[in-house]
Amino acid sequence: MATPVAAFAYPARRLVASCHLLGLVLASACVAAPAAAPAPPGAAAFASAEQSDPRRLGWMTGFPPPEDKTIRFSDADYFAFPKLRWTVCHFRQLMPTVGVARGPGGASPMKRRIDPSIDAVTFTPLGADTAMTWADSLPANYTDGIVVLHEGVLVYERYFGCLDAAGQHAAMSVTKSLTGLLGEMLVAEGTLDESAKVASIVPELAGSAFADATVRQVLEMTTGLRYSEDYADPDADVWTYAAAGSPLPRPAGYTGPRGYFDYLKTVRKQGRHGEAFGYKTINTDALGWIIARVSGRSVADLLSERIWSRIGAEQDGYYTVDSTGTPYAGGGFSAGLRDLARIGQLMLDEGTVDGRRWVPAAAIRRIRAGGDRAAFAKAGYALLAGWSYRGMWWISHDAHGAYMARGVHGQALYVDPAARVVIARFSSHPVAANSANDPTTLPAFDAVARHLMRTR
Amino acid sequence: MATPVAAFAYPARRLVASCHLLGLVLASACVAAPAAAPAPPGAAAFASAEQSDPRRLGWMTGFPPPEDKTIRFSDADYFAFPKLRWTVCHFRQLMPTVGVARGPGGASPMKRRIDPSIDAVTFTPLGADTAMTWADSLPANYTDGIVVLHEGVLVYERYFGCLDAAGQHAAMSVTKSLTGLLGEMLVAEGTLDESAKVASIVPELAGSAFADATVRQVLEMTTGLRYSEDYADPDADVWTYAAAGSPLPRPAGYTGPRGYFDYLKTVRKQGRHGEAFGYKTINTDALGWIIARVSGRSVADLLSERIWSRIGAEQDGYYTVDSTGTPYAGGGFSAGLRDLARIGQLMLDEGTVDGRRWVPAAAIRRIRAGGDRAAFAKAGYALLAGWSYRGMWWISHDAHGAYMARGVHGQALYVDPAARVVIARFSSHPVAANSANDPTTLPAFDAVARHLMRTR
Repeated sequence: MATPVAAFAYPARRLVASCHLLGLVLASACVAAPAAAPAPPGAAAFASAEQSDPRRLGWMTGFPPPEDKTIRFSDADYFAFPKLRWTVCHFRQLMPTVGVARGPGGASPMKRRIDPSIDAVTFTPLGADTAMTWADSLPANYTDGIVVLHEGVLVYERYFGCLDAAGQHAAMSVTKSLTGLLGEMLVAEGTLDESAKVASIVPELAGSAFADATVRQVLEMTTGLRYSEDYADPDADVWTYAAAGSPLPRPAGYTGPRGYFDYLKTVRKQGRHGEAFGYKTINTDALGWIIARVSGRSVADLLSERIWSRIGAEQDGYYTVDSTGTPYAGGGFSAGLRDLARIGQLMLDEGTVDGRRWVPAAAIRRIRAGGDRAAFAKAGYALLAGWSYRGMWWISHDAHGAYMARGVHGQALYVDPAARVVIARFSSHPVAANSANDPTTLPAFDAVARHLMRTR
Repeated sequence: MATPVAAFAYPARRLVASCHLLGLVLASACVAAPAAAPAPPGAAAFASAEQSDPRRLGWMTGFPPPEDKTIRFSDADYFAFPKLRWTVCHFRQLMPTVGVARGPGGASPMKRRIDPSIDAVTFTPLGADTAMTWADSLPANYTDGIVVLHEGVLVYERYFGCLDAAGQHAAMSVTKSLTGLLGEMLVAEGTLDESAKVASIVPELAGSAFADATVRQVLEMTTGLRYSEDYADPDADVWTYAAAGSPLPRPAGYTGPRGYFDYLKTVRKQGRHGEAFGYKTINTDALGWIIARVSGRSVADLLSERIWSRIGAEQDGYYTVDSTGTPYAGGGFSAGLRDLARIGQLMLDEGTVDGRRWVPAAAIRRIRAGGDRAAFAKAGYALLAGWSYRGMWWISHDAHGAYMARGVHGQALYVDPAARVVIARFSSHPVAANSANDPTTLPAFDAVARHLMRTR
């Protein structure tokens, strides 16, 4: 999410080469790191969810909070575990943002029929021998909130840590799927030509690697980009990106790019477009630029006008912004959990809300159909074998046709069209790679979907 | 409003000694400067409202905006005219904020019966010989939006510059009146003892000038505080306050106060409490601390829970915050204009909304009754002769019993109980002292109220 200001405010040499110490853009990139083998479930090296509960630790409690309980944007570890367990719910009070308005109307009522049998649903974590209950998976995944909809009815809802039903939480790279949905919507409506070269839409990118990539290649992240996220390398591109996206004042003498868009102009090509999936956040920011240029709206305004004000949202959402006011399309969105679930229901209902169409069905069908599985396989995600990436969503190609939006530290929006189930989850898992929670997430979501399918 | 980061990010010696160049806390203080004589109406030294329209000047337009049209928080002049005409609508995208939620319900409908005769209402500006129409007063005051309610019905509504009905605007020191209303509410409910000494509620202030002031003296700003706002003096207290409230990372070696509350502990006494009115923003931040301590809620959360979620607001509001997450109770609130008008109607209806009581009538009657006029007179406001200050509202003591919330650069909420009129206005007047627009504001508001009273 948002700009890794820690990286900007502090010399790179002071930073530990670990994703979850490096702030937001970096963390959202870390999720891409392919895992050769599943991480052991439970993340035993970290304090437990209960032990690290931000309320228990007392972060930012009191008027004012005690100095040793204060979390500041300028802290190098403001987004490191365990502080991140508070920070995920409070990005707007650490950095500049723009709103995503729901409009003056009220929230749409959400039918509620809690299913008490869900907690006892069991599944076997990936790579494990013994079964685990759904209830036990929640702390294992450092869940901050989880909502399950079945046939559009809320059947399960729990909050932990920093979150409650009225609170907001960082969606991290789930943001990408919202940007992708906007992109697919414009494609389906004919406003955006998926076969167009990027430079024909954003001439400023003519000198960059994006110039001769197609919009579709950007939407599927099959662009060939020289973009290193090697945190051990002080000259890695990610540091320049971090500095560019920072909302903070520039140090004297800074001559680098000033803003996400400004950075994208500097990206050089590596390899060929269209051959391999490479999960790089900068594709989504390029898509955000494309969307802004063809629609005349920032992704924040377009999301508000076309989607957020149509789904009966309970709360406004928001994006973090860079110093030019550009919303961070690659990872800067925060929202309420029920509203994230409403997005899942919009996907499940192929673009309609209570029978009214807001997004072309073709846009959502295109996402569900999935992308190039061979190109995806080259990225080597051991836990996501057989998956693909399309319109910035992760497609399982399983028997149910389930697909997901995924964000670092365990953010998830899971749509199972066969079971008619939506699962929305916000988390603050200590490890900044979803391979650490996928073993206790993917089979758990599948098990609950199947359970609900049976009890329909 | 908010923290004058310009002051923090740049050496004081580089700053022009002019209120409207000095950022937000400073500007909100500037409004206090007593004017010996009325400023000439029209502020002829500045570009006109039309010439300086932020849409016409193209600030922050485009994806991204051109460099010379970009307004950054780190610009020394981000809150100087003419940039301030954009900035007043976009504080959240420049600095950290906390939300003031309206809750999941919809906005209360506002009855609308536009009165086309209002534009032709005439009045004579203070100190002038010739009359002016209401319509002409709007650009003269650099109005960004104005709403008039009569008997709770919306009879006039216009937007200019950066604002529209769905937008938000800085309330500047109108924020103080909201903090004051919360304070008077807690006093009326018995939660807060107006005769208590501040140190008995906030022991951290025991070593400060506030220690032996009563809550009532804070509410009426009759405290005796050594607090200089002499911008020509690089050692003036206001610079320390500015640095304390900045949300930005501290420069190496900074050892000063970190946050509004931390600063308040350092304020020393000058003169005696209870003798003279002295408009000093730090009183409101002290009140914010008192409110947080007795209610267990920040002013942002308390405003949301007790008022903003009760008035049928159309939008959430927000406060800017310091680096400890403390809302800027003295000037950091932004909101939609109609919602500000709803606050005015709540005041007019003595604490009820559609017949339901949310604020004790006693709290609002206490404000309306006004404060110590002799103490107020000592401050020497030439244009506000006979007025007083009570519960952080400005009381005219005129024949109608009109009273106001006032913020620098022309923010105003005017309540005329006799005429049953509320006027809410957001502005971006170039001059950071309301003495510059009072001549074309006060008689205009009075004239429209009298006009509506006659046409009832």
